[in-house]
Amino acid sequence: MFSDLAPLFDPSSLVLIGASDRPASIGQRALTNIVEHSSYGGELFLVNATKDTVMGRRAYRSVMDLPYAPQTAIVVVPAPAAVSVLADCGRKGVKFAIVLTSGFGETGEAGRQLEEQMRAIVRETGIRIYGPNCPGMNNNNRGLGFTFSPAFQYDRMPGPIGLVTQGGGLGRTFLQASGRGIGIGLWCSSGNEVDLTASDYINHMAAMPEIKVIVTLLEGINDAPRFAAAALNAARQGKPIVALKVGKSAYGVQATQSHTAALSGSADINSTAFRQLGIVEVDDIDELIDTAALLARGVPARAIRTAVYSFSGGTVALAADMLGCADLTLAQFAPRTRQALADLLPAFAAIDNPVDTTAEILVQSDISYGSLLCVAQDPNVDVVLYPIPMEYGDTTLAACRNLVKVQAEVDVPIVPVWMSDKLGSGYQCLVDAGIAPIRTLGKAIKALSKWNRYGVSARAFDPRWEPSIMLAASPRGTPAPQAYAERAAKQLLSEAGVAVPFGRVCQSADEAVAAAAQCGGAVVAKIVSPQILHKSDIGGVIVGLRTPEEVRNAWDLIMTRSREAYPQADIEGILIEQMMAQRGVETLVGVHRDDLFGHVLTFGLGGVYVEVFKDVSRRLLPLTPADARAMIEETRCHQLLAGCRGQAPADIGALEKLLLAVSDFVMHGPYEVKELDLNPVLVSPDGAVALDAVLIASAR
Amino acid sequence: MFSDLAPLFDPSSLVLIGASDRPASIGQRALTNIVEHSSYGGELFLVNATKDTVMGRRAYRSVMDLPYAPQTAIVVVPAPAAVSVLADCGRKGVKFAIVLTSGFGETGEAGRQLEEQMRAIVRETGIRIYGPNCPGMNNNNRGLGFTFSPAFQYDRMPGPIGLVTQGGGLGRTFLQASGRGIGIGLWCSSGNEVDLTASDYINHMAAMPEIKVIVTLLEGINDAPRFAAAALNAARQGKPIVALKVGKSAYGVQATQSHTAALSGSADINSTAFRQLGIVEVDDIDELIDTAALLARGVPARAIRTAVYSFSGGTVALAADMLGCADLTLAQFAPRTRQALADLLPAFAAIDNPVDTTAEILVQSDISYGSLLCVAQDPNVDVVLYPIPMEYGDTTLAACRNLVKVQAEVDVPIVPVWMSDKLGSGYQCLVDAGIAPIRTLGKAIKALSKWNRYGVSARAFDPRWEPSIMLAASPRGTPAPQAYAERAAKQLLSEAGVAVPFGRVCQSADEAVAAAAQCGGAVVAKIVSPQILHKSDIGGVIVGLRTPEEVRNAWDLIMTRSREAYPQADIEGILIEQMMAQRGVETLVGVHRDDLFGHVLTFGLGGVYVEVFKDVSRRLLPLTPADARAMIEETRCHQLLAGCRGQAPADIGALEKLLLAVSDFVMHGPYEVKELDLNPVLVSPDGAVALDAVLIASAR
Repeated sequence: MFSDLAPLFDPSSLVLIGASDRPASIGQRALTNIVEHSSYGGELFLVNATKDTVMGRRAYRSVMDLPYAPQTAIVVVPAPAAVSVLADCGRKGVKFAIVLTSGFGETGEAGRQLEEQMRAIVRETGIRIYGPNCPGMNNNNRGLGFTFSPAFQYDRMPGPIGLVTQGGGLGRTFLQASGRGIGIGLWCSSGNEVDLTASDYINHMAAMPEIKVIVTLLEGINDAPRFAAAALNAARQGKPIVALKVGKSAYGVQATQSHTAALSGSADINSTAFRQLGIVEVDDIDELIDTAALLARGVPARAIRTAVYSFSGGTVALAADMLGCADLTLAQFAPRTRQALADLLPAFAAIDNPVDTTAEILVQSDISYGSLLCVAQDPNVDVVLYPIPMEYGDTTLAACRNLVKVQAEVDVPIVPVWMSDKLGSGYQCLVDAGIAPIRTLGKAIKALSKWNRYGVSARAFDPRWEPSIMLAASPRGTPAPQAYAERAAKQLLSEAGVAVPFGRVCQSADEAVAAAAQCGGAVVAKIVSPQILHKSDIGGVIVGLRTPEEVRNAWDLIMTRSREAYPQADIEGILIEQMMAQRGVETLVGVHRDDLFGHVLTFGLGGVYVEVFKDVSRRLLPLTPADARAMIEETRCHQLLAGCRGQAPADIGALEKLLLAVSDFVMHGPYEVKELDLNPVLVSPDGAVALDAVLIASAR
Repeated sequence: MFSDLAPLFDPSSLVLIGASDRPASIGQRALTNIVEHSSYGGELFLVNATKDTVMGRRAYRSVMDLPYAPQTAIVVVPAPAAVSVLADCGRKGVKFAIVLTSGFGETGEAGRQLEEQMRAIVRETGIRIYGPNCPGMNNNNRGLGFTFSPAFQYDRMPGPIGLVTQGGGLGRTFLQASGRGIGIGLWCSSGNEVDLTASDYINHMAAMPEIKVIVTLLEGINDAPRFAAAALNAARQGKPIVALKVGKSAYGVQATQSHTAALSGSADINSTAFRQLGIVEVDDIDELIDTAALLARGVPARAIRTAVYSFSGGTVALAADMLGCADLTLAQFAPRTRQALADLLPAFAAIDNPVDTTAEILVQSDISYGSLLCVAQDPNVDVVLYPIPMEYGDTTLAACRNLVKVQAEVDVPIVPVWMSDKLGSGYQCLVDAGIAPIRTLGKAIKALSKWNRYGVSARAFDPRWEPSIMLAASPRGTPAPQAYAERAAKQLLSEAGVAVPFGRVCQSADEAVAAAAQCGGAVVAKIVSPQILHKSDIGGVIVGLRTPEEVRNAWDLIMTRSREAYPQADIEGILIEQMMAQRGVETLVGVHRDDLFGHVLTFGLGGVYVEVFKDVSRRLLPLTPADARAMIEETRCHQLLAGCRGQAPADIGALEKLLLAVSDFVMHGPYEVKELDLNPVLVSPDGAVALDAVLIASAR
């Protein structure tokens, strides 16, 4: 599915098409970035349509005139010319083209046609295209900048983080995390994605040993199967991806579409997919940076236990409070840690976690060192949160130097929080040591939460799992889906292993009476017609029928109401069904096919509460047994199922089996499912039974 | 309730007791801060127990030797000596003493006894005490620092924000917001609060014209009625209070108690109280600063409509997305704004809100100025959010200069967000202009949300309202509360105007049959005994009785079960009650007396869902009609009451009346209520009826 992109990022030969020496032109800036600010050691050709020399170097009139095909071309000529240049590159045998120029799909129909032509060149010649309409590629770890940005020279700090964006502006925000001591090793900005997409760059970074964490800011995902494949490649190698997806609100969807014309997708489904693909999702740019910086220091091997350490009582109390609100755990110190702290610190210090050394000891570097070291070495501590509430000149510098010194001796990450708006020498000391200070307590706790959550999901990750969009054939080409009414749907599901009530479709009142007798106990009567999907709304369902007379009356009433409401409907009869004891919890199980990520299963509390509480959990299909269990546990109605307030616990095992049977039915059954709704599914101590079902599907 | 504290903050005469010239001693640092770093113009006396001169100034042996009583004393002598010094001050006629020394209540029982003695001095002499165990008082707007902190000289920026903390460390974090251009006019740090408390300082700041916003960081509230009175004084003057209360999680409660020994209170109730007292609550230190800085620029007069303006498409899309997620509104530009932008900006810019000018125009200062000005002058725009994604040297400096220039011409606040970790000359330009850049998009949106919410609550504020703790006599001294079983409780509530089902307590099966006939329709039978509060648990409730035979059988069954379960119980009979049609929503209405803030009413979805969804809203009593309506609307079950899924809407007016009747009963009824539980209250199209009731109360 993916090509080797190594020559794109570190080519042995290169051509800049549109090289120029006109000051501040794109061609001049791109050339300057290569020859002055990059440490590029390979062959560099220049192409200029009218000049023989550019900045004192030989220039060719066309890529066709080059002595051989360079591995990679950088294209900065205007949009219309770019297409023919790319055709030449393809013919010549150039492997990759980075198209920096804008004026393509983002400007309207004419631009979209140019992109179509570019895709044709890719198909015909095998050249791969990066861009267009992008600020280029920064490979800081190799000292390469294929970009026209005049800021390139200032933002070149190498590091263990790979960055994939679609636009340019916010990518620069990331690069400037160097101001906090965080380096971006490789930045790819995919622009209009006529060929290579963000997914390709993610996949490439997944295989780069020097990249420890991948960070991505996405406006749209145009290639969900490739995206999923890339993310799973990273997850299988234990390499974290941290993502921010724009388009969580209607404003965002609209603004993104007008910005990149990319489809945003449903925020809920994106989040569901990210989680299953091992991606940590965050809500803000700085959170991407904070979380990635922490993950670059290692992945937690267990649920993290945090030590809070500082020299201000109010500060550690607030930090502990916020840890608790985030459901994180304060470490319980080993007895020898408490003893060591008691020996070192003043009597009025707090020697338990959170530790308040008091400000007195900051100037005593041996005590400051010893107390932090013993906390960081405590066997029950996985991370040390060290909030620094103010800039105090030499005093905070001493604290920060001490932090750097202790960090050099321990593996456990020490996470400093620089809370003051004054940045002093202490701050700079942390930055210089590459121990990025987080800027607020809340953001630090959020980063710890995300760090912890990545550990949880990495430990639960099933490397064999792939979503249905990677497995199943595209539904295109199958016949138009049709609606299957209740009984037909139940029949199909029952064959697939989903429990449904015993029942029979009857053609007459006599038959209905006989069927009721077969059911035993109370029965329910329901109209059966493919045109009447919302049976209750027209009075087409009557429950609690116990005597033959009640069954006959119900028959007449349902028939009358149905014919009045839907005179044209095909009525196939009336379903007489065993009535379930109404103990138990009414849940819902639904499947729909998302445009981007394929089949998604939704489970939650059903009935009237679904709209009010939206207490649902979701998974892309196929479902694993662990998923089935987890998605039940994630809902709040899990407490009802588990038997709160003295109720007998429901048969959660049966519910898990039902969810897995539904997943199997959708993945492997005889129908391509567009929509399936089981609502309610009654879950009781006796099992999990689908009381109603609607299926919209086409035969495969 | 409050004294005039003006001489405390700006005394015309002052004595420093414990003045010293020993380098780095507390007495020497405090003296240096007054004579070298403050612009104090009044009389200054020094007291030193052993020396006649200190730093070249005359020193007295005792405050008793002074020629007259200064208005304010600053006390830095050690804890045990401080008490006798304070006694002298009181005798001499000193009005206020600021006790900086520590070693009091925070160290244990001996310290608590010293504090008891201090309180006795206050009672006997009328002196008022600030502290002890506090870093002092910074009055930046007067250039005064009564503090031993060596950092005082660096953090003296005046400004429109008043700050009240209990501890010291985090107060310094605030002062250093000067690094972002935000000045703190007056900082009070209340320490152990032996006499004056945070509430006194808040109340004082509420009356200071130069203070536009009060910010407070609280670990515990020891004087809820005073706190409420102070907050209401501020709210009545339209002066916002922004608060962060530590103690939202168990860790926070524990850490705070070990730090200050203050009781934390319930986070839910604190938040409820804050809202009703007109206080904006936030979650982090920087949020206090961001929100206060925005409120210092004005209070929104209507629900805010935001314009997003920047020079990066991805950035404005992300900002718009986050605005939408926060339920804020993007302004709809007037046609002339769109026209003006279209005329000014390049064709590929986004001229609608959010505005992306593209980076091209940053260097063209007339276009940059004109486009921002027309956005800020749009009649539909209440605030302009201007995210700056990167530091670009002169280019971003030009953008920031332009922002400052436009802000000088418009009233609408322009809120810059400096997203980069590199702080350049553009950042400094904003800081110097006092237009504090917020540091992340998410925090900026959060500040806008809080700003908006303060406007909403200020517009809805009822200046006459006071919570029950300010109105009602203390419940101390009333007899021990007793439990009233269902029928007695219902009788009392019914007299107070709360609808309850028709019913009668019966002494025999015959009487029960007669009562059932009186009720008409189905009845419910319930055991009546003050010892049996959870009647259903022992099978003491049987519903749906329709015939005399069923009533007799129920009588026997309930009596047998009750005597088996509670052989010692006083059984007063069996309640025969009309059974309500089970249409409608089962809600709960409860009142309890919070230790801190007095009576709190809770409303929400009842039944088994209360524990699962915790869908409740709360108010301190008394309830206003607007409160009653709002607290129903705040719950998600409001959708059920309003009639979702085609159900008939319930009688919400009757529910409001019931809530108000409960409030009246608690406030003015014949009982001092400890706890009242109406669960369920059935709310249907026919009204709101309390189906069960438990009351724990004592006669007043």
